[in-house]
Amino acid sequence: MLEEKTIEWIEISKYNGFSRMIDQTLLPLEYKKVDIKSSKDIYNAIKTMIVRGAPAIGIAGAHGVALGAIENIESENFIDEIKNTAKYINSSRPTAVNLNWAINEQLKILEENKEKSNREITELLIQNAVKLENEDIEINKKIGEHGSAVIPKGATVLTHCNAGALATVGWGTALGVIRSAYLKDKTIKVFADETRPRLQGAKLTTYELTRDGIDTTLISDNMSAYFMKKNMIDVVVTGADRIALNGDSANKIGTYLLAISAKYHNIPFYICAPKSTIDPDIKSGEEIVIELRSKEEVTTVNDKLICAQGVNIINPSFDVTPAELITGIITEYGIFKPNEIYKLFE
Amino acid sequence: MLEEKTIEWIEISKYNGFSRMIDQTLLPLEYKKVDIKSSKDIYNAIKTMIVRGAPAIGIAGAHGVALGAIENIESENFIDEIKNTAKYINSSRPTAVNLNWAINEQLKILEENKEKSNREITELLIQNAVKLENEDIEINKKIGEHGSAVIPKGATVLTHCNAGALATVGWGTALGVIRSAYLKDKTIKVFADETRPRLQGAKLTTYELTRDGIDTTLISDNMSAYFMKKNMIDVVVTGADRIALNGDSANKIGTYLLAISAKYHNIPFYICAPKSTIDPDIKSGEEIVIELRSKEEVTTVNDKLICAQGVNIINPSFDVTPAELITGIITEYGIFKPNEIYKLFE
Repeated sequence: MLEEKTIEWIEISKYNGFSRMIDQTLLPLEYKKVDIKSSKDIYNAIKTMIVRGAPAIGIAGAHGVALGAIENIESENFIDEIKNTAKYINSSRPTAVNLNWAINEQLKILEENKEKSNREITELLIQNAVKLENEDIEINKKIGEHGSAVIPKGATVLTHCNAGALATVGWGTALGVIRSAYLKDKTIKVFADETRPRLQGAKLTTYELTRDGIDTTLISDNMSAYFMKKNMIDVVVTGADRIALNGDSANKIGTYLLAISAKYHNIPFYICAPKSTIDPDIKSGEEIVIELRSKEEVTTVNDKLICAQGVNIINPSFDVTPAELITGIITEYGIFKPNEIYKLFE
Repeated sequence: MLEEKTIEWIEISKYNGFSRMIDQTLLPLEYKKVDIKSSKDIYNAIKTMIVRGAPAIGIAGAHGVALGAIENIESENFIDEIKNTAKYINSSRPTAVNLNWAINEQLKILEENKEKSNREITELLIQNAVKLENEDIEINKKIGEHGSAVIPKGATVLTHCNAGALATVGWGTALGVIRSAYLKDKTIKVFADETRPRLQGAKLTTYELTRDGIDTTLISDNMSAYFMKKNMIDVVVTGADRIALNGDSANKIGTYLLAISAKYHNIPFYICAPKSTIDPDIKSGEEIVIELRSKEEVTTVNDKLICAQGVNIINPSFDVTPAELITGIITEYGIFKPNEIYKLFE
């Protein structure tokens, strides 16, 4: 199984280093790692989706804050410069709360140690980034362990987008559940939505799963209801980018439509996400900001135009699945009914 | 408005000619007509989707039978050769019943005139093909007239695939309804599903509608529920490829998922089709044969691979929307509740 880190801090010294990550815009045709050595490049890597997936961009954000410290290690306004860097990186993408969460974890370290030297603070921010990085894999394996209980023997599992090793540091959330289930039962199969417009399901999920030897069928996003009607799908698992306290869950565009179809066919629908994806500051999904991305993502595939000139585009990158359509939310602390997820913060 | 024929019989003499059609595999990048001069090439044009859309392939089938007559005009087994040609062309695509219907209309002419000379029969088959061709436009304009009544003033109409002038000889079924509504109310707008895997919505519907100056927004297929939730869609109209006597309707893959979403959001969902799309020989959608097409349609876009090697593909080209999800079926004879459509055959 894919057991390397999607994103990883490379140490030069205790107070110097950089972020190394798989360039996900090139997969599955080309596997290449890139070294990101400035906070500005972290911003761009998140924005252009060299790194994507809520937990992975969280770690990228933590790395970015560490890079901000390295860049300002001689500065007299060290604390303020790091705070500015944090704010800047946090603005790269609005929907996934993990970015905000991981950056805040770094700012807590900064706050607790602000009397220390620039060098010592830099060292602590690097240490914390690496800690978050390693914890992410442990958390995903726990999500996988809990979640594997809801995958029936011999099941066919439908997933949307990529909530895999590539969306995290390793193992994955929804694909982590599939991996953990597969370790116990080699007969489970996966159907993967291609996930237009960016095709993360086609490009990343099929890459991960076929590499692991898991039987994977790629479908166009509009086919799910057809296969559900034919009783060919037993359960749906997806990741999430931000979960409100009432259980409403933002995830990649198309998740909501899929959840409606699962409900219509009485198929269980699970969200798989770490606690860091839950936003304790919002009560319902209506408060979640949905990122609108470029026109070109919809009008072109592989840089070739697929439609008439002069057509309008609205390209929401996420949608919100209301709690009523979600069977359960699978976290590292166990599986929760959507309307009980708030208990994680009590 | 696009007022030329998508497919047209070109007369050389009363008993000779050929079929001229827009090559729809090249749109919207290139507009080119091709001349199809043999029944075998008609078969291939339907199979490879140079011509597509249920009513248009019906006319192609009628042209194909006429070409079969021309090819065999000197044959001693003239009648049998035409019947064989008819059977061959009818096997090109299984789901749309209009192909079968139009070919049967030709076989009726053959049966009624089998005592006449080969030349006279050829002439009659050509005349009948041209008659069906012209009637198709009249029928679509009637569908448009009836259907425009269900489009509220200033509405935004969502459509799937291409049920336009290009799917017929002219005007269109679902897009015919939109065109007729637009003639009365210039403020109506359209959202078009791109319609993977062949992208007929992106490639053909946006081409037709932007050419007509109708405000058109292209969306990925998985976005419809997002816009429905935001109250940005007032009504859904699609075409159909085969309608059972109980109102179950086969149409392009994704229609069923869209209908489920429309129902969930209480948005009216209409099927627009001529009587020739209704199959009086089948009682329910369960009897409709769904065409499975090639793996490459899903794994590639514009001839470029979009997924990992070694992934499985099942590529159903159509799905069946059950009558319970359909608000009404708009025909040239008026609008019917799905469970009353059988009355057209009483």
